[in-house]
Amino acid sequence: MERIPILRIGSLLLVTIQVDLYDDLALQLQDDLSTRIAELGATGVLIDISALEIVDSFIGRTLANIAAIARVLDAETVVVGMQPAVAITLVELGMSLPGIRTALNVDLGMEYLRQAATGGNGVGTDHYAE
Amino acid sequence: MERIPILRIGSLLLVTIQVDLYDDLALQLQDDLSTRIAELGATGVLIDISALEIVDSFIGRTLANIAAIARVLDAETVVVGMQPAVAITLVELGMSLPGIRTALNVDLGMEYLRQAATGGNGVGTDHYAE
Repeated sequence: MERIPILRIGSLLLVTIQVDLYDDLALQLQDDLSTRIAELGATGVLIDISALEIVDSFIGRTLANIAAIARVLDAETVVVGMQPAVAITLVELGMSLPGIRTALNVDLGMEYLRQAATGGNGVGTDHYAE
Repeated sequence: MERIPILRIGSLLLVTIQVDLYDDLALQLQDDLSTRIAELGATGVLIDISALEIVDSFIGRTLANIAAIARVLDAETVVVGMQPAVAITLVELGMSLPGIRTALNVDLGMEYLRQAATGGNGVGTDHYAE
């Protein structure tokens, strides 16, 4: 079965979504991510969606689920690299991804997660789209 | 046209290969990577192939080409996450990927590239598969 690889970078996990997330693949990703967060004690999850030109309500829900699961496991999720057209479509669909933090690129997302992990998230969070 | 996303992490570029690399996609990746290395002055390229269960001679050649192009642009390439079965197949095919450095995972690959960039590659390179 096809799987989306989860890369570990320090205490963060990075997932790059490049293929269509059908049901089984999304569930597998949720499972794999939860296992890895718990195993490694990861403090943050970065999900790169820069390759996605279309995000439908299923993917939106999947991202929200992953963020919710990660939060329960004490890890924060940041979705990075959203294309402007995707942002427009999501808002038009009425999905503004509440509760999901976003950043322009992986670098900014990692910076935010590191600040959040060290408790320094009072300052500078305005650098990141929310 | 489908593209493989290239993520920037500091002065490094990270590519996760999850789909079959057919001709056009491989050429596109070479083009995109060379452009980004030059634009950003990247010092290293990480190519994660943990999702690949099969690596044929075409992919092997593509990886070698990318490493050669990156080297000319003054960036080093590390292939990470190779599955044991893939390593066995490659050697059986007579392709031992000469000139390509490998590491077990992204973390180790990044550590190596950072040491190499600061000129500290005399010590500790034995931690990485070569």
